[in-house]
Amino acid sequence: MPLLYLTRKEHFNAAHRLWNDNWTEEKNFAVFGKCANPHYHGHNFDLYVTVKGQPNPDTGCVMDLKVLKVIIREQVTDPLDHQNLNLDVDWLKGQMPSIETLAVAMWPRISHALPEGVQLHKITLWETQNNFVEYFGE
Amino acid sequence: MPLLYLTRKEHFNAAHRLWNDNWTEEKNFAVFGKCANPHYHGHNFDLYVTVKGQPNPDTGCVMDLKVLKVIIREQVTDPLDHQNLNLDVDWLKGQMPSIETLAVAMWPRISHALPEGVQLHKITLWETQNNFVEYFGE
Amino acid sequence: MPLLYLTRKEHFNAAHRLWNDNWTEEKNFAVFGKCANPHYHGHNFDLYVTVKGQPNPDTGCVMDLKVLKVIIREQVTDPLDHQNLNLDVDWLKGQMPSIETLAVAMWPRISHALPEGVQLHKITLWETQNNFVEYFGE
Amino acid sequence: MPLLYLTRKEHFNAAHRLWNDNWTEEKNFAVFGKCANPHYHGHNFDLYVTVKGQPNPDTGCVMDLKVLKVIIREQVTDPLDHQNLNLDVDWLKGQMPSIETLAVAMWPRISHALPEGVQLHKITLWETQNNFVEYFGE
Amino acid sequence: MPLLYLTRKEHFNAAHRLWNDNWTEEKNFAVFGKCANPHYHGHNFDLYVTVKGQPNPDTGCVMDLKVLKVIIREQVTDPLDHQNLNLDVDWLKGQMPSIETLAVAMWPRISHALPEGVQLHKITLWETQNNFVEYFGE
Amino acid sequence: MPLLYLTRKEHFNAAHRLWNDNWTEEKNFAVFGKCANPHYHGHNFDLYVTVKGQPNPDTGCVMDLKVLKVIIREQVTDPLDHQNLNLDVDWLKGQMPSIETLAVAMWPRISHALPEGVQLHKITLWETQNNFVEYFGE
Repeated sequence: MPLLYLTRKEHFNAAHRLWNDNWTEEKNFAVFGKCANPHYHGHNFDLYVTVKGQPNPDTGCVMDLKVLKVIIREQVTDPLDHQNLNLDVDWLKGQMPSIETLAVAMWPRISHALPEGVQLHKITLWETQNNFVEYFGE
Repeated sequence: MPLLYLTRKEHFNAAHRLWNDNWTEEKNFAVFGKCANPHYHGHNFDLYVTVKGQPNPDTGCVMDLKVLKVIIREQVTDPLDHQNLNLDVDWLKGQMPSIETLAVAMWPRISHALPEGVQLHKITLWETQNNFVEYFGE
Repeated sequence: MPLLYLTRKEHFNAAHRLWNDNWTEEKNFAVFGKCANPHYHGHNFDLYVTVKGQPNPDTGCVMDLKVLKVIIREQVTDPLDHQNLNLDVDWLKGQMPSIETLAVAMWPRISHALPEGVQLHKITLWETQNNFVEYFGE
Repeated sequence: MPLLYLTRKEHFNAAHRLWNDNWTEEKNFAVFGKCANPHYHGHNFDLYVTVKGQPNPDTGCVMDLKVLKVIIREQVTDPLDHQNLNLDVDWLKGQMPSIETLAVAMWPRISHALPEGVQLHKITLWETQNNFVEYFGE
Repeated sequence: MPLLYLTRKEHFNAAHRLWNDNWTEEKNFAVFGKCANPHYHGHNFDLYVTVKGQPNPDTGCVMDLKVLKVIIREQVTDPLDHQNLNLDVDWLKGQMPSIETLAVAMWPRISHALPEGVQLHKITLWETQNNFVEYFGE
Repeated sequence: MPLLYLTRKEHFNAAHRLWNDNWTEEKNFAVFGKCANPHYHGHNFDLYVTVKGQPNPDTGCVMDLKVLKVIIREQVTDPLDHQNLNLDVDWLKGQMPSIETLAVAMWPRISHALPEGVQLHKITLWETQNNFVEYFGE
């Protein structure tokens, strides 16, 4: 049976700020620039979740896209949408809300929710039209 | 001489919150939904500024695009980029930071800075990939 | 008060076929080419609905985008999504399902559902990444 | 010699329906939802074909893009464009026309047509702006 | 009968240079910056041609998109594609090859080729993802 | 520590021509078609540079995106922007300016400039909206 990689795109809008409490204000601005601004800024984040698996012979599909959509929304985009990533999200508390951190924190939440026979392969997270991260779970 | 409309795209990332101080918390959430979340959310805003004029016979251009870029950045996108639109921007103070408000507030700032012979025609402001406003100055 | 134009994007996927029952098969293929294929073909249609109005002083917005989204979905995209535009849609029966026809047929459905103080300004309908129509209601 | 991956994008518009003849109508709609609608729906499919190889020292290119374009069109997009994927295509007969099935069925058709020294690496097929599959031939 | 605006997108890739022979080299670089570089630079130009008219009752279409495509290609994109806009195109000779000039020069070529009952409404020409001009023929 | 892939997009506009001096004019046009046109043509090139590494525990980021941006601009896009790739760029002299050649030539320039702990993973170079190459340094 062939192995296929299926990707679903979702998005969320959120505020964040890059700031290290162990550093002085001066050092924070030296490192993070305007991303350290005290009252936050924000982005339209685009999220692509890629799973891999063999198509089900009865459906021709790796998995039901409607199910994948619900998993992504329940597990990650609904809890993040229109939130402040520094203050409002339990499973990000105490972490720097960079897109690297976000991608790693999303991994187990989505991975554990997938049906049998399908594996999470990659999380791709765009912060702006000019930068994104990819994470393969390792 | 032909009349042409020249558009330049710029962008900025910012946080905002829709909230009316004259209303109860309950009414704010009823009207604005998750856009009223207390710790703000944010967007990648795409801004298109359209000017109109006749091409200069010596250059073939309505105006120098490098000049238009500098005007947009100095007048509107640098002051807004990575800021909180409710708290950080003098010329938005006391106003609801909707894209409608933003477009209207940008108009005189850009319009006054344009060189002679060129008029501001339209400001188009995208908040997400699914919604935008257009303003013609009237 | 300033006048602003607010646009919301929605989409739907549908099948259609260009075919004139008054013509021979030969003439249909001569005019419509592969668009006349008997078993239909289909598209991902992108729909932009533009309304105009003055921002509400209490909200800063021309209208509630959530309301506009619901109107568009209830009135036009839910009835069209995953349907056959030649066979399945009451309000398109007996009409050639071109994007011109669709845009005109959508107009009164959306226009009548809008709240007071807001007018439908334009319907823009993309059939592929290379062609679209615009309709202003006249 | 360096190894490079060269990708060419093509597209086609087609109708399809997800339906399993071994199931009741009830089960088909339970599994496939509106994708099971009897009169078909359709999409603008975007296809990216990626080949790998070493650049020819005389041309600097992995292969002639004009040749790759012709191969993709002759082998897969011309036979699929403006067709019904359930009814009209010999090499899809008896198969569920999901994008997974399509990608797998395209593989040998393109692979066999490539010139010596160039190998098919990946087929990426977008069904909507929100979902796509990738297939590496295994 | 309703009035509709139908747009078709085409593209071409070309080289050009902004340079005024009546000026010194110093002045050319002062005005045009790197756009004055002697050995040319280039762009992927995206062209949107908008026509207006009433749908034909027999076809439901303002005009045959295949015919519009052929007109645009024969009249403007085939003569410009992979050419040097300063040196290679008869109908641009002696003119500054700005996008303003191009749009104006395209107008009569397309306008005269349109079938009866259809009028050219707008030419939109993108030079990069960040700037474009619009011309309405006046 | 997790391994992440971080990508930054930049772009440049340039002219080029595909032409092999060892071949006759006839053979050049037979192989390269209109890409061999003597006065050059050009493109808006989109460049995606992907680096891999482990997030810094103090910043949450694989590397400072502002630093990556400066490296890409200084090493490759500033030297190429608004240039003729056949004539103007020292580190491309004597090479066929295909996107394959460009990607390979960019590799050591970017790779050597990266900070410790971060490795260049992939260079992706788009020539038009329909074709691109990927290079992994091997």
